[in-house]
Amino acid sequence: MGHNRDLGYVKAFGKHLKRLRLAKSLSQEELSYKCVIPTSQIGRFERGERSPTLNTIRILAEGLGEEPSKLLEFKYKVKRDL
Amino acid sequence: MGHNRDLGYVKAFGKHLKRLRLAKSLSQEELSYKCVIPTSQIGRFERGERSPTLNTIRILAEGLGEEPSKLLEFKYKVKRDL
Repeated sequence: MGHNRDLGYVKAFGKHLKRLRLAKSLSQEELSYKCVIPTSQIGRFERGERSPTLNTIRILAEGLGEEPSKLLEFKYKVKRDL
Repeated sequence: MGHNRDLGYVKAFGKHLKRLRLAKSLSQEELSYKCVIPTSQIGRFERGERSPTLNTIRILAEGLGEEPSKLLEFKYKVKRDL
């Protein structure tokens, strides 16, 4: 079980968040305005530098007009600890 | 946009997590063992006292044999700020 410090998943989430935002033709500023989350913070989420809380995932989903579960619908392969 | 301190969502997540665990006939101890997460912590998540990180959501899903998105597939109505 790849464990807690698996930053790969947070990076994969960030790429997926960006894909969803671009699919809605939203800029980071527009999503930031909709979610009342600083643009800089959205940038950190998209680069996988910051992991959103559960509630922030819900707010991002609401800003994108999606269900929260959609934000976790991406492929990810856990790198097993060797 | 119901915002950051909306603890209702975290509580709703906890109830959903418990439903998923019970649907697999797993005790908190068994899920704890599968996920390498302390039983006490799983209890806090289920009572909505603690919000899991993104990576912990992935680990809980793996322990339940589900996709991470399934852990966010529950109904939730945001209480608008009056």
